[in-house]
Amino acid sequence: MPKVTNEYKEKRRQQLIDTAKKVFEQKGYAATTMSDIVAASDMSRGGVYQYFSSTEQVFRAINDQNDQNLKDYFERLLDEHKTAWDALETYLDERVEAMKNPNLGFAAVAFEYFVMSSRETDRSPYIQERLKRNKAIFTEFLQAGVDRGEFKPLTDLESIVMFTINLTDGMVLYKLVLGFDTGKIVGQNDNLKIYLKQVLQIQG
Amino acid sequence: MPKVTNEYKEKRRQQLIDTAKKVFEQKGYAATTMSDIVAASDMSRGGVYQYFSSTEQVFRAINDQNDQNLKDYFERLLDEHKTAWDALETYLDERVEAMKNPNLGFAAVAFEYFVMSSRETDRSPYIQERLKRNKAIFTEFLQAGVDRGEFKPLTDLESIVMFTINLTDGMVLYKLVLGFDTGKIVGQNDNLKIYLKQVLQIQG
Repeated sequence: MPKVTNEYKEKRRQQLIDTAKKVFEQKGYAATTMSDIVAASDMSRGGVYQYFSSTEQVFRAINDQNDQNLKDYFERLLDEHKTAWDALETYLDERVEAMKNPNLGFAAVAFEYFVMSSRETDRSPYIQERLKRNKAIFTEFLQAGVDRGEFKPLTDLESIVMFTINLTDGMVLYKLVLGFDTGKIVGQNDNLKIYLKQVLQIQG
Repeated sequence: MPKVTNEYKEKRRQQLIDTAKKVFEQKGYAATTMSDIVAASDMSRGGVYQYFSSTEQVFRAINDQNDQNLKDYFERLLDEHKTAWDALETYLDERVEAMKNPNLGFAAVAFEYFVMSSRETDRSPYIQERLKRNKAIFTEFLQAGVDRGEFKPLTDLESIVMFTINLTDGMVLYKLVLGFDTGKIVGQNDNLKIYLKQVLQIQG
């Protein structure tokens, strides 16, 4: 009998995550069942359950990867740009570019989960934990600019970070519900730059 | 047989709207059925259906009233303040004050409807129509400041309005899901003022 290596397990887990992501994107969070994920995968029910025992668990695994990707992306941007403002502006512009993709994307799933969690109060600890993680990722990005003496925040960094996450998440929602043009994605992005320049006191 | 006057009908309709609002707030949009609304009312099923034939219809009637209230409120604010900026700042501060209310409120229901409408595409015409109406209400408010020579917008007014609705709606969502303090409602409001002062070029 061939040994099941860790590497093999990790590969299968990743395949499952990728499959589940597509199912979630198609059906939404609440409407997706483990049976849907099993049906979309090339594994048996028992096989799938060796990796994940609930849609909540799969959802969190997807978030974990997305958050790690954002963290890596921010670090790369800071490395690749002369100023923290250039890095920030590139992030904002690349986000808008990505939003031209007609695909609904996983953002709609995460939104559904977030909005409905005002009723599903058992989600609260996870929501709080994830917010903390996301805030830390964004704060680290802005803090780099503060440390370099480029950003001189007019208010506490946490409020600036919350404001920015709020606004950028909302832009994704507007794009999903209203469309790129009606959602005024480019105009909102311009306004976000005006805000950030002012609140971080960027010269020029 | 006593005549059913228009006034009586209007009163009954308003009672139904008030009842339905509470049911929606308790259960959420998707989970509320006409039977729930009938059960919570003091009317028969047939009686209720003389006024509304679907939860969608009741939901829209509630929105209509909320939007009209906002319009009236903005007009009152402009009348009662010397400058349009004072009126705008009062609006922002009174919003934050209202958000201290622990009640979930109808905002959670409207959010659920809005977020899920990226999948329920038959809602799209209504979503577009309602956005247009809300944009008009906000634009009128800001335009008053422009007309008085107080506001000198750095970008097109539509993008400023969309940005502001996006951010303020998001603040409500943050309050609902994270709570007033963790959601950094006061800090976000301070940042919103910084943004608006800058983008509208308010002196002082």
